[in-house]
Amino acid sequence: MLIAIDAGGTSTRAVTLDVSGQTYGYGRAGTGNPTAAGIAGAVAAIGLAAEQALVGTSPSGPVSAVIAMAGEQTEAFHDQLSVRLHGLGVRRVSLQPDLLGIFHSGTHEREGYALIAGTGSVAARIRDGRLDRVVGGRGWLLGDAGSGFWIGRRVARAVISALDGQGPTTALTDPVLRAVGIEPPASPADRVRALGQLVSLTYAQPPVRLAELAPVAFRSAQDPVAREILVAASAALAELMAVVRVPDLTGPVVVGGSVIVQGMLAAPPDLRRLFTPPAGDAPVTPVADGVVGAAVLALRQSGVTVDAAAFDMVRASIRSLPAPSSPTCPVPPHQ
Amino acid sequence: MLIAIDAGGTSTRAVTLDVSGQTYGYGRAGTGNPTAAGIAGAVAAIGLAAEQALVGTSPSGPVSAVIAMAGEQTEAFHDQLSVRLHGLGVRRVSLQPDLLGIFHSGTHEREGYALIAGTGSVAARIRDGRLDRVVGGRGWLLGDAGSGFWIGRRVARAVISALDGQGPTTALTDPVLRAVGIEPPASPADRVRALGQLVSLTYAQPPVRLAELAPVAFRSAQDPVAREILVAASAALAELMAVVRVPDLTGPVVVGGSVIVQGMLAAPPDLRRLFTPPAGDAPVTPVADGVVGAAVLALRQSGVTVDAAAFDMVRASIRSLPAPSSPTCPVPPHQ
Repeated sequence: MLIAIDAGGTSTRAVTLDVSGQTYGYGRAGTGNPTAAGIAGAVAAIGLAAEQALVGTSPSGPVSAVIAMAGEQTEAFHDQLSVRLHGLGVRRVSLQPDLLGIFHSGTHEREGYALIAGTGSVAARIRDGRLDRVVGGRGWLLGDAGSGFWIGRRVARAVISALDGQGPTTALTDPVLRAVGIEPPASPADRVRALGQLVSLTYAQPPVRLAELAPVAFRSAQDPVAREILVAASAALAELMAVVRVPDLTGPVVVGGSVIVQGMLAAPPDLRRLFTPPAGDAPVTPVADGVVGAAVLALRQSGVTVDAAAFDMVRASIRSLPAPSSPTCPVPPHQ
Repeated sequence: MLIAIDAGGTSTRAVTLDVSGQTYGYGRAGTGNPTAAGIAGAVAAIGLAAEQALVGTSPSGPVSAVIAMAGEQTEAFHDQLSVRLHGLGVRRVSLQPDLLGIFHSGTHEREGYALIAGTGSVAARIRDGRLDRVVGGRGWLLGDAGSGFWIGRRVARAVISALDGQGPTTALTDPVLRAVGIEPPASPADRVRALGQLVSLTYAQPPVRLAELAPVAFRSAQDPVAREILVAASAALAELMAVVRVPDLTGPVVVGGSVIVQGMLAAPPDLRRLFTPPAGDAPVTPVADGVVGAAVLALRQSGVTVDAAAFDMVRASIRSLPAPSSPTCPVPPHQ
């Protein structure tokens, strides 16, 4: 029995499967990223998701777990997570980069490119199933061009600029203010109040929470100011990809992360194309998360060959799993 | 007797003077900005500077204080500062915007423009001795284009990009690493270590401390990467000024703050011109700090007319004051 886990910045997803690729259970919990939640919080979330995914299964042998995750994979995190998962019968815990989870969620190939644009942004070239070159992923202060934080910060600045009269008025203003719980200005004179509240609130919270404003930009994509921000974000992401791309490796290209997923779902078609640009002749595959890829990695670690047919089967099997009724529901007792 | 105080983000300066414009004492302490130091820290610094400036003076009547300062002037700060200065014989405490302190440090005129580019950046149009329009000054996360933080963040990113091989190599790399106490890489393979240390260190400190890297850019201004950052900063500051400028008000233009002062002192002549651009026919006057302006404001509040001759006298008198031997020396007992 295998557990494949995608531990992300906003949520964690886990599936149980056997070496034939047949899946059994699905679990979901909060952020499993130790940078975002702290080691204890991340371990708790991953443990909860794994526990849910194991409900109803009766593993006959030892269980192996593969966790695809962003950020630094410290020894302390690995140790504490191993202790937690050991309690669920897991004998082997393997931490893998989220870039490989995303890549293998979109393809059975062992070389190509992956791009993640969520709260942060990072791109990689993959050869022989490993990360050959990674750019970006330096966090909100030092990089992450085109990321959710990058977009959200520009959205906040555009709204402040509009309230201030320094920049053009924008349809972003009212939805941004409402999104953070500030009453939009009732009159031109009332703008000073709204502006002051927005500035104070922004500095009162962790800077990275500006990423929560990125969806507003996608929902207001007809507005020229929002559009300019989104076009610039897509250009920054294309630049990230250009750095990892080499002529002798054409693809496939797998893209994921909330910014790209939102771009696909909420943006008008022309913008949507910008966020998933064709990469020469290589197909571009957007994926919702990295859990299929974590399953592929788990199967390969068990010596299973995952070809195109096996990949399609695993992906379909994971998609068919019923999601738990609520991500925060109490954990049912083991059966 | 009057006390004029310039409470800045890195240091606080105080001078004592009488209504004839004659100056007596000079004091200096750490940051007097409540946003940077907290209310208690700012009150302590301003109190210390004022105490030093009062050494050797024997005020015969009540003392008034004018404090030019950045950021929000809260009631709590005004109250606690009044209590502290009351202990020094000060009967009236007036808080004024740093923009007016800078403006009146460069001119006796009552209308024109002021631009401050220090850790942050802000520009203002001044009419009738008051702020008529202010832009910028929204702090490191939401604005401050062309500021020390803005430059320092780009410097850090350029170095990371160079170490990573994503961007061009730059002469900024070694001095930036040394400035933050990291050993420059001894070999290409050693770059990963230096890069990791720089990223960890940057996230371990308050973001605004990236402003401390701005001086490195000015000292490396011959390097194309550094030059590009500085040219972009000067363009951002010029844009800030363009927003406050109106045709019917020509000047004068007074500029101050560490970025501009460093631009004047350390940059090559062509860059220096960019940081103090000619504003039509209006003269551009760079000033080191806002203490002369605080003195002008204090005199005007006492009903004194400060014309060109009086302004020159006050400025010369303040420049002639001996600086205290050390900004952190113990406070001598009152005489």
